[in-house]
Amino acid sequence: MAILIILPEKQAEEVRNLLLQKIPDEQIFIWPEIGAAENIEIAVTWNHSHGIFGQFPNLKLIASYGAGVDHIFADPDLPKEIPVSRFVADSLSRQMADYVAGAILAHRLRLVDYREYQAAGHWTPHAPRAGNRVTILGLGELGSRTAEQLTRMDFEVSGWSRSRKSLDNCTCYAGRKELGIAVNDADYVVCLLPLTAETRGILNRNLFNMMKEGAYLINAARGDHLVVDDLLDALYQGRLAGACLDVFEIEPLPGDSPLWRHPRILITPHIASISRSDDMADYILENYQALRGGTPLANLVDSALGY
Amino acid sequence: MAILIILPEKQAEEVRNLLLQKIPDEQIFIWPEIGAAENIEIAVTWNHSHGIFGQFPNLKLIASYGAGVDHIFADPDLPKEIPVSRFVADSLSRQMADYVAGAILAHRLRLVDYREYQAAGHWTPHAPRAGNRVTILGLGELGSRTAEQLTRMDFEVSGWSRSRKSLDNCTCYAGRKELGIAVNDADYVVCLLPLTAETRGILNRNLFNMMKEGAYLINAARGDHLVVDDLLDALYQGRLAGACLDVFEIEPLPGDSPLWRHPRILITPHIASISRSDDMADYILENYQALRGGTPLANLVDSALGY
Repeated sequence: MAILIILPEKQAEEVRNLLLQKIPDEQIFIWPEIGAAENIEIAVTWNHSHGIFGQFPNLKLIASYGAGVDHIFADPDLPKEIPVSRFVADSLSRQMADYVAGAILAHRLRLVDYREYQAAGHWTPHAPRAGNRVTILGLGELGSRTAEQLTRMDFEVSGWSRSRKSLDNCTCYAGRKELGIAVNDADYVVCLLPLTAETRGILNRNLFNMMKEGAYLINAARGDHLVVDDLLDALYQGRLAGACLDVFEIEPLPGDSPLWRHPRILITPHIASISRSDDMADYILENYQALRGGTPLANLVDSALGY
Repeated sequence: MAILIILPEKQAEEVRNLLLQKIPDEQIFIWPEIGAAENIEIAVTWNHSHGIFGQFPNLKLIASYGAGVDHIFADPDLPKEIPVSRFVADSLSRQMADYVAGAILAHRLRLVDYREYQAAGHWTPHAPRAGNRVTILGLGELGSRTAEQLTRMDFEVSGWSRSRKSLDNCTCYAGRKELGIAVNDADYVVCLLPLTAETRGILNRNLFNMMKEGAYLINAARGDHLVVDDLLDALYQGRLAGACLDVFEIEPLPGDSPLWRHPRILITPHIASISRSDDMADYILENYQALRGGTPLANLVDSALGY
């Protein structure tokens, strides 16, 4: 068996070295090096070049380097029969829960405003913003962990997903018909959805019009969930108080994007949940052992649903 | 019985109106109006003019408008026999827990850095900062609630106080001898101590030298806990990574303070825990009823200890 890693060089080297400590006798290639194509059974990937997987006749698993797999299914030439797995790790979920909590508290406490007053030497105390209701769109690994942490921080948490979930202390809505009721009372709406044909562009003017005036938007899922012009309009009209965005249609965010200098948008450079190489190596090894032993693969996604 | 309110006008009016809804027949004065001095039995105060309490022969309670009472004991002419109460409210404790969590997460996630990169149009992703240990100095109402919330957010929490406390999932240290061991492993040191002769200036170079290199300081107690020059030195020498300060020796912080424009200090204008007038009125009413009924007063402080 050989493993192919399709990642930026630094991460690829780290993951390879960690894997070689555990399976020193296996061949591990870093793309574009592939060795003998028929030996490749696992491909670990982030934003691979479309069409490349057809050349590996014995490929048995395509493993995403992130929690999302949309970058894999975006390949029109993806061989349909090969299982695809997402990266699930406690460290990823905790990072996301912390990111969302941090973005909410930074808004509630006006930390960015105070930083700007500070630069101007202004002492302008305000009470923290009112509003304790959070609605999370997407209740997968990241969304449910985030809901749990916010609940433990005494927020009133609701969630919305395609199929109905059941979570402690979280009102769960499901399906398009319930999207309006899920968001209309929220002070914070957080997008942690998988990117699929159904969720692309879901953060649009229809959604913003259903939201409470003065609510705050956090998008830490994918840039393609958001219709940027609709967000700018909603901010201009005062429907939304602000937004915190970690993901963008094109990354790095192009220099001419109007998002960069918007006073009520906080931009972070896709850092909400960063895959750690050690956790990544553990996740690859788990499925490597499963392939070796003929046991079921872990964390597979449903390719019909695309997540 | 008459009640005297010694607060800025807006808060004073709010508290008076709320009290009058419940006890419409009582006389409630806003300083410097006092009516007949012998009728005043309760004084609600924040930074009163020193020496004024001696003129009220029947004063039975001095009630602080905040969680801290140092501003009351700072009065050299304070009549020693009159009970002093602190303001305790769930809203105060939760605000403080949120403030500390927000300050920690903002540092961990580098939100202030990203805001500055954003202004310059720079996309510079970094992993969140490592470090999960928090030590809280002061385990009173605010400190223990903050410890509890941080524990629920999966931080490893220690605490330090004058006399030893016992809190779930929190390693508790006590007394001067244990201060070093309490802070030497912490990634975040949070000051929520009462201000007394013993704690004044406790955030000084001795403490910073006992802290781990690269740790982060949060002071949301009193400005007089901090020796500003020692903090500036510790930041300059790279001992501390940064600080978040909500309180200052003189407030508003004077325009010529070097703290204002320090790149690694985040300044907030004493907003970590703001007394809400409705909670305040409830707290006054509780002790008003106790005085009327001859039952024990709530939330009294120990005037020998000064907190």
